[in-house]
Amino acid sequence: MEVVSPINGCSGDTAGKVIICKAAVAWGPGEPFVIENVRVEPPQKMEVRVKILYSSICHTDLSAWKGQDEAQRVYPRIFGHEASGIVESVGEGVVDVAAGDHVIPLFNGECGTCRCCQNPNTNTCEKMGVNPMKSTMVHDGQTRFTTADERRQPIYHFLNTSTFSEFTVLESACVVKIDSEAPIKKMTLLSCGLSTGVGAAWNTANVEAGSTVAIFGLGAVGLAVAEGARARGASKIIGVDVNSHKSPIGKQFGITDFINPRDSHKLVHEIIVEMTNGGVDYSFECVGGVEVLRTAFLSTHIGWGTTVMLGIHTTPEMLPLHPMELFNGRKVVASVFGGFKGRTQIPHFAKQCILGVVKLDEFITDELPFEDINSAFKRLMDGKSLRCLLYL
Amino acid sequence: MEVVSPINGCSGDTAGKVIICKAAVAWGPGEPFVIENVRVEPPQKMEVRVKILYSSICHTDLSAWKGQDEAQRVYPRIFGHEASGIVESVGEGVVDVAAGDHVIPLFNGECGTCRCCQNPNTNTCEKMGVNPMKSTMVHDGQTRFTTADERRQPIYHFLNTSTFSEFTVLESACVVKIDSEAPIKKMTLLSCGLSTGVGAAWNTANVEAGSTVAIFGLGAVGLAVAEGARARGASKIIGVDVNSHKSPIGKQFGITDFINPRDSHKLVHEIIVEMTNGGVDYSFECVGGVEVLRTAFLSTHIGWGTTVMLGIHTTPEMLPLHPMELFNGRKVVASVFGGFKGRTQIPHFAKQCILGVVKLDEFITDELPFEDINSAFKRLMDGKSLRCLLYL
Repeated sequence: MEVVSPINGCSGDTAGKVIICKAAVAWGPGEPFVIENVRVEPPQKMEVRVKILYSSICHTDLSAWKGQDEAQRVYPRIFGHEASGIVESVGEGVVDVAAGDHVIPLFNGECGTCRCCQNPNTNTCEKMGVNPMKSTMVHDGQTRFTTADERRQPIYHFLNTSTFSEFTVLESACVVKIDSEAPIKKMTLLSCGLSTGVGAAWNTANVEAGSTVAIFGLGAVGLAVAEGARARGASKIIGVDVNSHKSPIGKQFGITDFINPRDSHKLVHEIIVEMTNGGVDYSFECVGGVEVLRTAFLSTHIGWGTTVMLGIHTTPEMLPLHPMELFNGRKVVASVFGGFKGRTQIPHFAKQCILGVVKLDEFITDELPFEDINSAFKRLMDGKSLRCLLYL
Repeated sequence: MEVVSPINGCSGDTAGKVIICKAAVAWGPGEPFVIENVRVEPPQKMEVRVKILYSSICHTDLSAWKGQDEAQRVYPRIFGHEASGIVESVGEGVVDVAAGDHVIPLFNGECGTCRCCQNPNTNTCEKMGVNPMKSTMVHDGQTRFTTADERRQPIYHFLNTSTFSEFTVLESACVVKIDSEAPIKKMTLLSCGLSTGVGAAWNTANVEAGSTVAIFGLGAVGLAVAEGARARGASKIIGVDVNSHKSPIGKQFGITDFINPRDSHKLVHEIIVEMTNGGVDYSFECVGGVEVLRTAFLSTHIGWGTTVMLGIHTTPEMLPLHPMELFNGRKVVASVFGGFKGRTQIPHFAKQCILGVVKLDEFITDELPFEDINSAFKRLMDGKSLRCLLYL
């Protein structure tokens, strides 16, 4: 098979050929990424090869890179799932995107044909839904990445996406076309964090005007929840974070009240219940800890309070609730990708973003060249960036 | 204060007087009930005194009588919460029921004024909702029952109701008037079990025509769920019980398929997932065990499956789910009194029952004189009766 090394993105003559390009390869849990040449096979049946333009970093990349869940450890691997790019070529049978289309990858794919995809009330896809154990392509169980040296060692895929590479191959169910007029750089945010947070407020909780909200953890996802709640007209949006720097940042995204649990001797849920005459209508857990989850639950009003889980729980700890605690009418639900069906609903959400219904610019706090990926990870770990966009 | 001992129910001259009548008093955990004379004080402000006509027995009476939850043990006590009767007299301020009205008691009261009562999406009442720790009246923190001997020892109330007595006193928020044309004996069932089961299917789950249902535990509540699901047009209603006698009984109430877990080497949820091409739309846990709850959860379809908890969990065991297990779109919710607001919605439900939308007669398997209450408890414990009506 012919091999090419495109210098300036898609030149039109790469289709059907192996591409050699730069990728950030993780060789072991928490080991620094190594930028090196990899071979990227052409897309097979129902696959798409994409030239990545921007890839940002999300906490899910962080915990996966660290290998926090041992069962999910597979190396060498190419992480990254929040990105944007241009279709370089498509495999057999792909009809809904074509070379040159602007797309964003979907870690939570939408096959369109399974029972879940045909049910309007869920964005779980039985075939292409988020699956942290998946590390190869569905078509043949193989990787499309190998090392560029003679060993041609397989490099594994991550979360349907693997966007820390100049070129990546995805299942066609895991890309969605975005209007070419839309600012592609900002659209990167819709690939994970922004959609996850705003959608949790809009689709999962269905926050209404005048309602009260508490958000635990003010990273990009928590702030996107705030932005979604603000857009819906929530009357009070309480932000909770152990980092007090998040207080002024939160105000930009609609946070009306800020609580740092370390600054108070009272329990956080007691403070919130007092502030809201019985508890908030909706709480959002964006941390992934069972103690925080319990506090979020107790911060809601009995009778109708709903706690939405967004944080990823990497420990074996079970739900921190007794069954009888649900009998007073409080609810706990989880939200994946904000409840959006990726291919069906993200184009409309993109239009709303372009109209300014929710902010985008403020989420992009840093931009770095792809080669600086290790610095970008450090900034996220230090709580210094919301979203750092790597340009490839 | 004048004391009367009415022989034939309400004679019209008992208002304002202490009534001496028969009650079934529980003197300690699991000790046989003693039918003895008790003094029943007149109703105080916002209270109602009711001549009980029928009282049946529910598993909640059984577990409370046994004292399974030590924190809830208070003796001597008058249990009973599923009943019907006639208002004998009302206390100051009571305007919505009057002497002579047919009523059923509400263990889950509706004050009508708290934030929950004013929210259409919950039947939790902040003031008069179900509370197993409550054993006295709100007005003065006293009991309205005392022993008829000279000691006048207080006898405690149970679950807002205490219907194992010829006369009882209830908060007015805890009674609902029923059309006097309705067959009062059958209306007894609406006081707890029937409303709990049918309402869980109609209000909490909102079962739709063509959907699939699994019900764990085919006591009166589980069979009422089946009846509610049948009335909504569910296409498959799978009953699960360790007592195979429930198979033919279940068929009367719409059960289409029966599984006895003891008859199979396969896991129950695997059988159900196979039978339903991926899992049921709704499962109902009517047992109160964490293992059963987990099976009920795993029996639902990913993406949208909803597990409704109705069983009372009397052990300290926490929810048997990992937080991440909710991320595939399955939900767990609890249902109290079928989600019905007692005073607002039960009169309409009573009309539907009279029209024959759901069956009533088939739930009444036994009728015994009040004095035989100990036999009636034994029949329930032995799984021999669905509802045994005690007539007083």
